[in-house]
Amino acid sequence: MRKPTLYIVKIGGNVVDNPDALQRFLAAFAHLDAPKILVHGGGKIATEVAAKLGVTTQMIDGRRITDQAMLDVVTMVYGGLVNKKIVGLLQSLGCNALGLTGADAGAIRAQKRPVGAIDYGFVGDVAEVASGKFRLFLDNGLVPVIAPLTFEIQKGSMLNTNADTMASAVAVALSAHFDVNLTYCFEKKGVLSNPDDDNSVIAHLTPQSYAAFKAKGVINKGMVPKLDNAFDALQNGVSQVIICHAHELAAALKTQNAGTKIVSSFIPTH
Amino acid sequence: MRKPTLYIVKIGGNVVDNPDALQRFLAAFAHLDAPKILVHGGGKIATEVAAKLGVTTQMIDGRRITDQAMLDVVTMVYGGLVNKKIVGLLQSLGCNALGLTGADAGAIRAQKRPVGAIDYGFVGDVAEVASGKFRLFLDNGLVPVIAPLTFEIQKGSMLNTNADTMASAVAVALSAHFDVNLTYCFEKKGVLSNPDDDNSVIAHLTPQSYAAFKAKGVINKGMVPKLDNAFDALQNGVSQVIICHAHELAAALKTQNAGTKIVSSFIPTH
Repeated sequence: MRKPTLYIVKIGGNVVDNPDALQRFLAAFAHLDAPKILVHGGGKIATEVAAKLGVTTQMIDGRRITDQAMLDVVTMVYGGLVNKKIVGLLQSLGCNALGLTGADAGAIRAQKRPVGAIDYGFVGDVAEVASGKFRLFLDNGLVPVIAPLTFEIQKGSMLNTNADTMASAVAVALSAHFDVNLTYCFEKKGVLSNPDDDNSVIAHLTPQSYAAFKAKGVINKGMVPKLDNAFDALQNGVSQVIICHAHELAAALKTQNAGTKIVSSFIPTH
Repeated sequence: MRKPTLYIVKIGGNVVDNPDALQRFLAAFAHLDAPKILVHGGGKIATEVAAKLGVTTQMIDGRRITDQAMLDVVTMVYGGLVNKKIVGLLQSLGCNALGLTGADAGAIRAQKRPVGAIDYGFVGDVAEVASGKFRLFLDNGLVPVIAPLTFEIQKGSMLNTNADTMASAVAVALSAHFDVNLTYCFEKKGVLSNPDDDNSVIAHLTPQSYAAFKAKGVINKGMVPKLDNAFDALQNGVSQVIICHAHELAAALKTQNAGTKIVSSFIPTH
């Protein structure tokens, strides 16, 4: 029996920060005619709010170090301001959005990352996705909108978590019941073969070509975790993974002529 | 056929601001053995955060004037920080909490208050409660935790709304399907006949005795909107309304020997 289609779309922080781009993206998302989930990044607002509140932002290798004060800031900004802005805009577009953090309905539990060479603070690695609760919401016409915050149940604590990873984990968990299409939307047209040429989109990326592009240094370190998440999802039950521009969501999903399609082992000939 | 019991409990800002009092209250709430909903106030954190962000707090007659900057602050603080703190604590207590603003699942729609003698800004008066969505959540073991934010769908805008009023509106809307017990918890033991004596709790308050206490000036203006909401709920289908101390929730609901019971027209003799 064929499983029903589920779209899971991740939208990055740069689009979240731009009201016009966000509105345009959300209009396209709202028009996707199937069960769907949106996962959003945080954007720069958290850094701005933190600075005004006197909380210092510390980044190591592009990752935010999350102490208690910063955890409060990201809980406010990601779980409150950004999540509710998106939920409100989707509602006004006729899309019955339901904002969630990992704590809500026990949706996404995580473990606080063990302190190794770097202490990331209140950062979580996804441990369990409550797929039954997601199915309940989806089966009843609701559209989960997930903020990049997971939850450690033992201490009742929110944890800061990378949105790309959350999208991948939710996609894998729901692939047992749905034919999952996972799409990462950001401010580029896809994975580029030439970082200086915005139109040099790689149409299909296999593990082999990914390894080759990495070896040549063409695919840079900001893109590597995103692609690792993408291949991980594909290898764990997700049907399709696409990386595309936020403005090309409809083209990427409906006509398949935009963005980079992540494929497991061969390059389709058509 | 008897309707199932539903507890709707509103917890005030003063308790929200006190971590020990909040934890104690939430433990009692988590132990209520029936479908339940929590509505929380905002507390003083919004004023503190606003001050640090350079947003001026303007109050008229105890009501916050909500301009766009303040709306962002209350969305962050009520919908993010406070709501997720409560949801996280309840989850760690084994209570499957689901945080909601009025926008989420279209739960509570409102109309922006018309500009009269005072322009309250982005303040909403409740227009419609999506009781079907609340029933869906309750029927599936979820415990809605409502932040004091409603939603105007036409503009996709959040609106700041009094938590007492939201609790009353949700209670009335759900009284068609549930035997609703509405409880207002705050930092006093109930409605006091002598404001200087914390133990002078009025056990039962009727519309007649309420009018008499108001005429004598015993019931002061901070309590009047709360009691107006309480009587309004009782007159519109809610089975029981109690006003009690946050630490006496269990006593008020289980043994009925704490707090002030709001009654419609007679004083019970037992």
